[in-house]
Parts: sequence; structure tokens; C-alpha cells
Amino acid sequence: MTDAHFHLDPCIAEAWEIMERIGHETADSPGITRAAWSRNEERAADHVRAFAWRHGLQALNDAFGNIAFLLPGVHPATPCVTTGSHLDSVPHGGNYDGLAGVAAGLAVLAAANADPASRGMPFRAVAMRGEESPWFGTAYLGSRLMLGLSTLDEIGDLVRSDSRKPLRHHLQQLGYPRTGEAVAPLLNCDLVTSYLELHIEQGPLLESDDVSVGIATAVRGNVRFPDARCIGAYGHSAALPRRFRQDAVLAVAELALGLDEFWKDRIAQGDEDFVFTVGKFSTDAALHAMTKVAGDVRFSLNIGAAMETSLDAARAFLFDLIKGIESDRGVSFELGREVGTTPTQLDGHLIAHIEDTARGLGTATRRMPTVGHDAAMFARAGIPSAVILVRNAHGSHNSDEALERRDFTDGVHVLGRAMHRLANAP
Amino acid sequence: MTDAHFHLDPCIAEAWEIMERIGHETADSPGITRAAWSRNEERAADHVRAFAWRHGLQALNDAFGNIAFLLPGVHPATPCVTTGSHLDSVPHGGNYDGLAGVAAGLAVLAAANADPASRGMPFRAVAMRGEESPWFGTAYLGSRLMLGLSTLDEIGDLVRSDSRKPLRHHLQQLGYPRTGEAVAPLLNCDLVTSYLELHIEQGPLLESDDVSVGIATAVRGNVRFPDARCIGAYGHSAALPRRFRQDAVLAVAELALGLDEFWKDRIAQGDEDFVFTVGKFSTDAALHAMTKVAGDVRFSLNIGAAMETSLDAARAFLFDLIKGIESDRGVSFELGREVGTTPTQLDGHLIAHIEDTARGLGTATRRMPTVGHDAAMFARAGIPSAVILVRNAHGSHNSDEALERRDFTDGVHVLGRAMHRLANAP
Repeated sequence: MTDAHFHLDPCIAEAWEIMERIGHETADSPGITRAAWSRNEERAADHVRAFAWRHGLQALNDAFGNIAFLLPGVHPATPCVTTGSHLDSVPHGGNYDGLAGVAAGLAVLAAANADPASRGMPFRAVAMRGEESPWFGTAYLGSRLMLGLSTLDEIGDLVRSDSRKPLRHHLQQLGYPRTGEAVAPLLNCDLVTSYLELHIEQGPLLESDDVSVGIATAVRGNVRFPDARCIGAYGHSAALPRRFRQDAVLAVAELALGLDEFWKDRIAQGDEDFVFTVGKFSTDAALHAMTKVAGDVRFSLNIGAAMETSLDAARAFLFDLIKGIESDRGVSFELGREVGTTPTQLDGHLIAHIEDTARGLGTATRRMPTVGHDAAMFARAGIPSAVILVRNAHGSHNSDEALERRDFTDGVHVLGRAMHRLANAP
Repeated sequence: MTDAHFHLDPCIAEAWEIMERIGHETADSPGITRAAWSRNEERAADHVRAFAWRHGLQALNDAFGNIAFLLPGVHPATPCVTTGSHLDSVPHGGNYDGLAGVAAGLAVLAAANADPASRGMPFRAVAMRGEESPWFGTAYLGSRLMLGLSTLDEIGDLVRSDSRKPLRHHLQQLGYPRTGEAVAPLLNCDLVTSYLELHIEQGPLLESDDVSVGIATAVRGNVRFPDARCIGAYGHSAALPRRFRQDAVLAVAELALGLDEFWKDRIAQGDEDFVFTVGKFSTDAALHAMTKVAGDVRFSLNIGAAMETSLDAARAFLFDLIKGIESDRGVSFELGREVGTTPTQLDGHLIAHIEDTARGLGTATRRMPTVGHDAAMFARAGIPSAVILVRNAHGSHNSDEALERRDFTDGVHVLGRAMHRLANAP
């Protein structure tokens, strides 16, 4: 096998342009917003379909707006090396979280189709919906539907946070399923020999190590409480002595700092696995005042770890902490529904294969755990899966994501070559 | 002097009815809302004026909607023993904070006018506007204007938090000043020989001591930051290692708990003077997410103390605390405008006089510091001032205020008899 005829760079350039255009059209200052199953997400899908059409690729929709692309002449039932990622973003997020992996997959397929030696290769690229959890309070909805890990009966009534309308409604609004589309899962482990997802790194480790490409070892799982609440009692800010207070702000502050201490202790013990975030923390705008003790706080809690044992330890610590705060401060916590996912170990052979491929290209890599990606769902469906991380300044889930084009290019070269070698392997 | 002919109880009953009616008409579930210079506050003023008219009292408005009531035949320039309080409430507050003192003053004047021996007594009752700080971020606006401590030029551009329109606009909306009304201050220290304000207790001390009437020793001052902010950096909730985070939620949580520790230390040292409250604490609803480290928190900070030295010590502690948190967590605090008032010591002779009066009525009292009341402005204007506190379950500034009618009656009897004895004193 040789890559001599496999000219990725022009296709990477075009895919980059498409990404920039989608970012421009879905701007929502600061940053961009492509809600799951929204007009903006659909607009991204339109651009992606148009790119595929220009390059002669086959496009197959499922009933939920997920799209699979194949080289011309490849039967949809062919087992393929598969790549891709998601089209949606968090609110006011960056342009590359998700979209970079879709663009990378399209670039690889377009280049393969332009190369006589690669035509008809068993490659599949996917563009998925609704991966980000802020929209429905839980992640991976698109890939779960596409892989048959969840059904619309199970999740169709979940309500989107911005519209307050159910997933079912948003699918209808976008016209899914289109006439004749199968409602059966588009993919399963028989159709996907391996899954390689390119994704921007969402932390600063590649940047701080000056390496353009990372290889994920595991997808962190999480324990999440999207709608947690602490109920105390409103009272006069100056007249109420401390011993009579039931201050919900101080109670949630103590919860957050308690978890922060737990985290510091883990790090001090050399354990870098645990992470936690209280991303939302709000007193009630209708009832709070500078001159009132706060009687109600709503907050979110997101605990992550690559090891199930770390998650269990954190959950146990959390419940003990809450009991103590409730008794000290006369408040009560209602954590609400618990969502989240179990940690997923990625495929060791694939990791070694990608590492070896990168070495062949002269691209330095480092291994690291990563956060939630659709790859976790492919792994859960029994498909050998891996994630190629690309350096990205300023992290993701914010408007300052800053993927450099040369790092993207490095990543797509590693992806394309790794897919080629897998497809050509015996 | 004898009180034999001074029949307070029927007037107290009627004043109580008026209070209940105002509460009903300004309900805003939960609780009641009478914004400063709002239609609801004006509605309360209408009821108060109607009560005064039925009882033959004189009513004088100033240019700002404050009202002074006099017995018939008493010249407006007569130095008078004066009582009263404010008509406005906090958002979703209780009905009695302020209004009880207005109703008490009207009951005393109506009873005095019904008693041939008390007619023409130098009594004045006042109903004031805009005492609560949530509306314009600062307290006592009505009494400051009424006493000439502030001018409309100075404060007319302050913006009300709900409407985002200036005080000047709201005065116009209500038709102030009415034709011919003096824009000069309605009262000064020559016209007020002493000021006695009846107010519900805003803490639980009278209730926990089983005493119906308290006498305030000082009005707590405060150091307030209504619009404080902490700026960190948004980031991915799982991918960003702890050492790279600039988490605004944890920073403000640490600030709040640091002040709570300071408070606990003061109490442990036997110092009950300091209080503090973070009543508002909110991540940015447009940018926050369960899956993002919070890069921005807006909060309020309200520190109170009856001693200037306590406030100074707290302010110094706060600034040091902030410096430490900024350096540890890579965030920056913008405390914004500082508002607040200096503590006010109340008049020792008046306190003793009220105590003695209550003893004569067989009503047990206890001394205690209190929180911000219009009485602080009268004291600042050089008028001997006192506050009679009435037991009230569940504190104030919340919808559960629960003044018992028999405690209100006890308080009005102490007020009425104390005013009588002062007016009759040589």
C-alpha cells in the first residue's frame, strides 16, 4: 500500500472552508450555537451534504437526521472503517468541538474518491446529531439513536432546555424521518469494523506539551445532576442571627468547596482521574435580593472520571458531604435526576495502530484520557473505537476555541493514513 | 395627664383592617410587592390618605410622595412628636415591614383626635416612600428626600431594578410633584422634637425570648456591593485539569465561606455585631452550562454592623480575602459600586423613656440593635430618634412575615403612650 496518490491537502483545505462557513452562519455572539436538532444544526448538515454531493459521495440519512457517507459503489451493508463526529455545539460554544471530526471524515472520503487507487474503499464517515448534553440534559442522543442503543420511544419525550419542547417535536420540525427513511438503526457492530473519531482536545495538555496530536486511552464517564437544588429559608439579611439562618448560597458554596478539597486531596495522592464542575449556580431571580438570605439555589453538578471506582468514591463522598451540610445549615438538598455515563476504555490495538501510523508520518503524539465523545457509544456497541485528539488552544465549550489549521491537517493525515492501513489490513 | 379618654383599640382595629386590605391588593405570590414609587406603593398611600380623611386628619404631601399627617388645627410648622414608617416593600416581601409603622402612627393620631383631651396635640405621623434598597440599590430614598438629606438632583437618575427606568421617571408617572406642592424638604429638626418609629422585628430574637416589644439601641450600618462580579474563564468541565481552571463559582463560593468563617470567629469571641449575606449569586444564564467551568458570576454582598469599627474590620478582611482568592484561582473580582450607610446610635433618653412607658403598661421589653429603618435618617438629621420593635415570626423580607395582631396592639399602646408623655412633658 502507498499513500502517494492519496492527496489529502486539497480536500482538507475545502473541508476547512466549509467549517469556517458553518461557523460564520451559526454565530451567536459570543461564539456559536448549534442546538441539537435545531435549524442551525440542520444548516451545518446542509453544508456537509452539499460537500459530499460535490465529491460524489453517497449520503444516507437515518430517521433522526444522522448521516452516513460512503464512497460511490460501496453497498450500505458493507463493513467499513468508520469515522466522524457530531454537528451540534453547546450554547455559545466554539466551532470545532464536533464539527472538526465531521469535516475530517469528509476530507478523507473525498480524497479517497479522488484517488484511483483508493476508490471503492470500505470507508464510512458519519455526521451525528445531539451529542452535547446541555440541550436535553444527557449526552450522545444522536449516536445512541443511530446505533440502536436508545429508541425514540425511550428518549423522544426529553425536553430541550431552550425551547422547553420535546425531542420528538424538534425532529418533526426538521422533517425527520423523511419519506422512506428506515427507522431501524443505521449502523451496528457488523457494519463498523472500527471507529476512529477525530476531535479537538478539550483541555490544554497538548498545548502545554507542544504536541499537535493526542491519542485517547479512555473516555471519562460522569455522574451528573443537571437540576440540583438546595432549599433553605429566605430571611432578613441583617436582622437574622447566624444561628437562625438556613442560607442556601452558603450551603451550595460549602458543597462546591468540599468537592474541590476532595479533588485537591486526590491530586496530592497522585490521582489525576477525578474532575468536577458546578457550572450553573443561581439564586432565584424572582425572589432573591441583596437584603435577603437566599432560601433557594439551583445548580448543576458534573463529576467525571475515567475509572468507575473513582466515580463511585466521589458519589459516596458527595452524599456524606450533603448529609453534613444539611445538618449544619438547616437546608435540604434535592439533587434531582442523576444522568451520566460509565467510563469507557478505548481499544488498545487501535491506539497502538494510530500511534504507529503517526510515527510513520513523523508526527509526535501523546496518550491521555479524554472526555465524552460519540466514540464512547461505538465502544459500548461493541465496536473497537479510538479518538484522535487535535491540539486546540483555550479548551472547548467556550467561544475561544482556537484550532490551528496546521494541527487539524496533522490530525487528518494521521486519521486518513490510519483508516487506509486498517482497510488494507488482512 | 391621663390616658383614660385615649381609646386606641378601635383605631388599632381599623388600622389593622387597612393593612390587611393593602396586603390583599398588593399581593404578588409569594408574598406582596410594593416597589418604591410604583402603582402598588401609591395604592397603599391612597388607603392611608383615605383613613386620614375619614378621621379628620390633615394630610400634607411633599414633592416626592411622602405624606405627613397632623391633627386638625395644628399648624404645619408646629414642632411635633413624630412617628411613622415606609409604604414600600422588598420584591415578594411581607406586608408588615414598613406598613405596620405607618398604620400605628395613623391609629395613634386618629385616637388622639377622637379624644377631647388630646385634640390639637403636637403629633405628626408620616408615611414615606422608597425605604427598601432592592429597588434603587440604596436605602431610605424617601426619608432622605423628605428630610433634605438628599436632593432629587443627586438621586433622580438612580435606576429602578425592575423597570430599568430612573426615579425621576417613576415620580412623573405617579404625578409628583402635584400642583402647588413645595419641593423644599417637608421636615427638619426644628419641626420634629423626637421621632419614634414602630417596626416589626426582622429577626427572631423577640420570638425566641417570648417578649412582644423590643427597643432598638442602634441601627446597624452596612457596607454593600449590589453588583459585584467575579470573572474567571469558561472551560470544558471534564477536559480542563484543576491547575488550569479559573472557576468563578468556586472563587465566589470561597469568598462567601471565608466571610462565614470570619463571622463564626467573631461570634466565638463573643462579638454578635457582624452579619453578612450573599443574597444573589448567579452564573450567566446565557453562557453557563453543566458541562462548562463557569467564567462569570454576578453576586451581591451585604455586610452589616452596629459599630463602625466592625464594618471597617470586615471591609479590610474582605479585601485581603479577595486578594488571596484572585491569586489562588486566577480570577478577578470587580466589586462594583459600594453603597451602604454608617451605623446610627439611637437616642438614650428616648430609649429609657419608652422602656419606662412600657413598664407602666405592664409590657416587658428587651433592648437590641436593629437593622436599617428610616429612623436612621431622622437621627442623621439631628433628631432624637428611637425604634419600637414588635415581635414577628419568620423574620421579614420574605413572604412568611407573621405579625400577630395582639403584638401589634402592644406595640401601638407603647408608642401612643410614649408620644403622649413626650408631648405633655415640660
